[in-house]
Amino acid sequence: MDNKGMLFLVGIGPGSLEEMTVRAKNILQAADTVIGYTTYIRLIYPLLAGKEVIESGMTREKERCQRAIEEALQGRKVALISSGDSGIYGMSGLLLELMDKDSRAREIAVEMAPGVPAFVAAAAAVGAPLMNDFAAISLSDLLTPWEAIEKRLAAAATGDFVTCLYNPKSSKRTVQIERAVEIFSKHRDHHTPCAIVRSVSRPEQSITMTSLEHLQDCFIDMLCLVIIGNSQTALHGTWMVTSRGYEL
Amino acid sequence: MDNKGMLFLVGIGPGSLEEMTVRAKNILQAADTVIGYTTYIRLIYPLLAGKEVIESGMTREKERCQRAIEEALQGRKVALISSGDSGIYGMSGLLLELMDKDSRAREIAVEMAPGVPAFVAAAAAVGAPLMNDFAAISLSDLLTPWEAIEKRLAAAATGDFVTCLYNPKSSKRTVQIERAVEIFSKHRDHHTPCAIVRSVSRPEQSITMTSLEHLQDCFIDMLCLVIIGNSQTALHGTWMVTSRGYEL
Repeated sequence: MDNKGMLFLVGIGPGSLEEMTVRAKNILQAADTVIGYTTYIRLIYPLLAGKEVIESGMTREKERCQRAIEEALQGRKVALISSGDSGIYGMSGLLLELMDKDSRAREIAVEMAPGVPAFVAAAAAVGAPLMNDFAAISLSDLLTPWEAIEKRLAAAATGDFVTCLYNPKSSKRTVQIERAVEIFSKHRDHHTPCAIVRSVSRPEQSITMTSLEHLQDCFIDMLCLVIIGNSQTALHGTWMVTSRGYEL
Repeated sequence: MDNKGMLFLVGIGPGSLEEMTVRAKNILQAADTVIGYTTYIRLIYPLLAGKEVIESGMTREKERCQRAIEEALQGRKVALISSGDSGIYGMSGLLLELMDKDSRAREIAVEMAPGVPAFVAAAAAVGAPLMNDFAAISLSDLLTPWEAIEKRLAAAATGDFVTCLYNPKSSKRTVQIERAVEIFSKHRDHHTPCAIVRSVSRPEQSITMTSLEHLQDCFIDMLCLVIIGNSQTALHGTWMVTSRGYEL
C-alpha cells in the first residue's frame, strides 16, 4: 500500500446505531473521510466527530462514488456508506463499476462491510415472514424498465416466493404497486398476510398489518417496505410467520 | 412483566464476532441463558462466560425452541441464537409457531435482533452481485417438497433474478444442484458469472468464481452458498457485479 488509501463500502444497517455491525462501527471510527446521502449521514452523526464528511442528495450516487475514488487516491481512508447493506440497492455496484473504468483506481484497496438490509429488519419487526424462499424486487423503474419489473413480479408470484417490495410507491409513481397487487392476486389468496413497515428501525418506525386484498387501501410511500406472504404465511398472534414445514 | 422472562431471537451474523450487530452483542451479554446449535455456540464462545449455555445438534430445532420457552417461563432472559439472521432459514418462525400453540407462552415477551444474513455476507465477499432484484432458494427438500423447489428455481430463472442457493449440496443430496444448473441454463447464458462462497466470514472462508456451465464441476457442500448472476451480472476485475443500470 503505497499511500493510495483505502475505500470501505459500509452498510450502516437499517437505521439505529445499535443495528450496525461492530465492524462497520470500527471502520467508521477509523475512517478519515465519510461520504454518503445526507439522510444516512444524519443517522450516524454521533460517530463522525473530527472527520471530513461529504454528503449529497438523492440521485447524486455517481458523484459520491467519484468523490470517494478521488479521496482514496489522495491516500485517505474513505468510508462510502449505504443504509442497510451496501450491496443491496446500495452503492457497492456502481462504485466497483466506476473503479473498473478508472485505471488510477486499480491501486486502491477496497473492502466491504456488509450490513443488516432494510428488508431483513422489516421482516424481524413483524415476525418471521422470510422463513422460506423469498425474493426482493424494487418497484422503481428509474433504472430498470417496467417490463422487466413486471416480469419479475409475475415470476415471484407464480413461484410462491415471499416477496419484499422496495420503493413501492412515491407521489409520482402510484400505478406500480397497484399493478403488483393485481399480479399477485392472480396467484395468491386474497387473505394472504401482508405487512407494510415504514422507517424501519428508526424512532418513527410504524407497522401496518394487512392482507393482499387491502394492501392498496393502506398508506404507502417511499419510506415503506412491503412484504407479501406466500401460501404458507399466516398470523400467529400478532406475528406474521411463514411456515418452514416443521411438524409442530 | 411479572417475572415471566424474555426471549430474544438473535441473529449472530455470518460468523465472525465483528459481523454481529451491536444490539445482538448487547443482548447476548445481558442474557442469562443462551441456546443454540453447537456450531453456532462455538462461534460466540468468547461472549458466553458465566451464562447457562444449552447446545444441541442439527435437526434438534424444535427441542431448542421448547427449551427456550421453558427457560423463559422460569423468568430467565433467554437468547435463542441462529447464524446469519434468525428470520432467514433460522429459528424465529418455528419458535413463534410453537409459542402460539402454548397458552403459557403468551406472557413471554419476545424480541428479535436481526443479523447480517449469510447470503448478504457472501455477496459482499465477491463484490456486489445483489445490486438488482434477487431471490433466495434453499435446495434442501427435507421440509419443502422438491416439486415446489423446482418450481421456484424455474421462476427465479425466468424472472432474471440474481439467485442465492442455500444448502446447495450434501453428501446425500447431489442431484438438486445439477437440476438447478440445468433449469438456469435454459434461461441464462452459459457464461453467466457464478460464485461459491464456503464458510463465509469464518477464518477458513474460501471463494470460487466460476460460470454457470462450470458450476457443477466445482467443489460444493453444505457449508457453501452459491450465487448465480443474472443477465446484467459481469466481472469487473475480480469482482462480481450486477449492474443497476446507472449510466457510467
